Amino acid sequence: MRTSFALGRAFGALLALLLMAAGAEAQTDPLPSWNNGATKQAIVHFVERVTSQASPDFVPVPERIAAFDNDGTLWCEQPFYFQLAFAFDRIKALAPQHPEWKTTQPYQALLEGDLKTAASAGEKGLLEIITATHSGMTTDEFASTVRDWTETARHPRFRRRYTELVYQPMLEVMQYLRANGFKTYIVSGGGIDFMRPWTERVYGIPPEQVVGSSGVTEFRIDKDGKPELVKLPKVQFVDDGPGKPSGIHTYIGRRPIIAFGNSDGDLQMLQYVAAGPGARLVLYVHHDDAEREYAYDRASQIGKLDKGLDEANAKGWPLISMKNDWKVVFPSAQ
Amino acid sequence: MRTSFALGRAFGALLALLLMAAGAEAQTDPLPSWNNGATKQAIVHFVERVTSQASPDFVPVPERIAAFDNDGTLWCEQPFYFQLAFAFDRIKALAPQHPEWKTTQPYQALLEGDLKTAASAGEKGLLEIITATHSGMTTDEFASTVRDWTETARHPRFRRRYTELVYQPMLEVMQYLRANGFKTYIVSGGGIDFMRPWTERVYGIPPEQVVGSSGVTEFRIDKDGKPELVKLPKVQFVDDGPGKPSGIHTYIGRRPIIAFGNSDGDLQMLQYVAAGPGARLVLYVHHDDAEREYAYDRASQIGKLDKGLDEANAKGWPLISMKNDWKVVFPSAQ
Repeated sequence: MRTSFALGRAFGALLALLLMAAGAEAQTDPLPSWNNGATKQAIVHFVERVTSQASPDFVPVPERIAAFDNDGTLWCEQPFYFQLAFAFDRIKALAPQHPEWKTTQPYQALLEGDLKTAASAGEKGLLEIITATHSGMTTDEFASTVRDWTETARHPRFRRRYTELVYQPMLEVMQYLRANGFKTYIVSGGGIDFMRPWTERVYGIPPEQVVGSSGVTEFRIDKDGKPELVKLPKVQFVDDGPGKPSGIHTYIGRRPIIAFGNSDGDLQMLQYVAAGPGARLVLYVHHDDAEREYAYDRASQIGKLDKGLDEANAKGWPLISMKNDWKVVFPSAQ
Repeated sequence: MRTSFALGRAFGALLALLLMAAGAEAQTDPLPSWNNGATKQAIVHFVERVTSQASPDFVPVPERIAAFDNDGTLWCEQPFYFQLAFAFDRIKALAPQHPEWKTTQPYQALLEGDLKTAASAGEKGLLEIITATHSGMTTDEFASTVRDWTETARHPRFRRRYTELVYQPMLEVMQYLRANGFKTYIVSGGGIDFMRPWTERVYGIPPEQVVGSSGVTEFRIDKDGKPELVKLPKVQFVDDGPGKPSGIHTYIGRRPIIAFGNSDGDLQMLQYVAAGPGARLVLYVHHDDAEREYAYDRASQIGKLDKGLDEANAKGWPLISMKNDWKVVFPSAQ
């Protein structure tokens, strides 16, 4: 009896130790890819403030909304927005059905790989390319085209799939927030139909938590009597700059309490989030790591961060230094 | 020892009985306000089909999306849409600031309680009234006005608060679906900003699961430096008729597998939902109970159900008879 009692005690003690170790491990570091420093601390302290029942800043679960810009905040946006890379690839794929493109700009330049000439067509040319590649099909067809593209296309510099160029430290932030009762939303200037086919798999963000720019869709009953939604060549909503607070209001209907951006296009969203009552945290990802990713801010054509940098400095919003705050940038190869 | 053993067995048996009873009670009737019949069976059988792991029609939790029209499906819409009652009350409340309304139609008629003359102003007059009462303030101000109104205004016939004129059987359906892993969405022609302030409290549906018609909002920094969203007198999106499938696509990004409506304005939503792959269920609430609520369909100005009735008959969509399927219509007095 004594022996079995002693064994039982030893087993109990071992079990307790194991449980403690597991607990300690789970608690040690929710953000392992972040260097210890002020930025990481700001995030962890904020989450503790709003989730601790005893805290005067406690926020009930349904109000724990987090908003993330996508391009440049959750994944890379250089040398140009990945949605543009998709559009350019679609132009190439659709070219056989459009022989006229061989002699029409900006299509001709794109087909010849001359991005400089294509870019000289400016916003008007770009809108034409987006229209040609993002409308005239059903929503289901478009989603399947996007899904196929994410499986095959590769980034010119990193030679990885575009969906493998997401930021590992931000994946951890989203996971950490969700583990603490937050609903994580994307609030992006990018196309909502371009993001939704892969955000659940890549970020753990379901389609209904993606806010973005959109085109008008039209309900039709096709010749076989099948109802379908067709993407029309007409802008419905631009979720960028001052459109982001409007997008948040229209789609979510509650003001987030934490938001991440990286460019002037996110400034109004960060202002709107910061201005709500109670504890708030807004942060800018600062691209200062030319070696592991890219370094750009005030002078960049893509992801320009100029007014936002001034405002962050004036208001004391944390700047996430990619170079100093992040141990790794992208997830390890799969 | 034997006695305590026997007692232990008796206690165990008692516990098992209690657990079985509790289990049986929980399983007996998820829809107690519904009479047993084909309609109730159709709902319960559908839920069992899509939630049973062994079923060939099993649907994973993230895909369990349910869409509900609001006016006439979740709450009463007679003698006219409750949002109109709100607008008319706002005209009265705002009249002191608009002395010109005393001599301008349709305001004058409304202020004099002459709804017939007011109605003769047609859609144009109505849009003017909606614009006058739904724009020119911040989104926060509007939400608080709506909240106040739901606390005080009373329905002319039932003398209850409008939010007490929701359908008890539909509250049970929403609860039942959520208990089975569904996300419940409102997809209404009504104003999104008019619904969100009270849907969580009344239906258990959070703001981010409300899809509706919306006006354009504008982000501004006010004179004190405070960012705010202002409601502009400009339509952004009309979530009615063919707009409902588009609204579902834009807001939710997944096709629901079950949908409830009550009028021709819901027809395209029901067609869209019914046309998806796998198990689908779409139902119409049929207002055939003049005694407890109202009886109307093909000839009604509000909530007209004509083409939808034909389609339901042709396709075999269940019709929910308010008179025969529902034991009670409204929740008991609070």
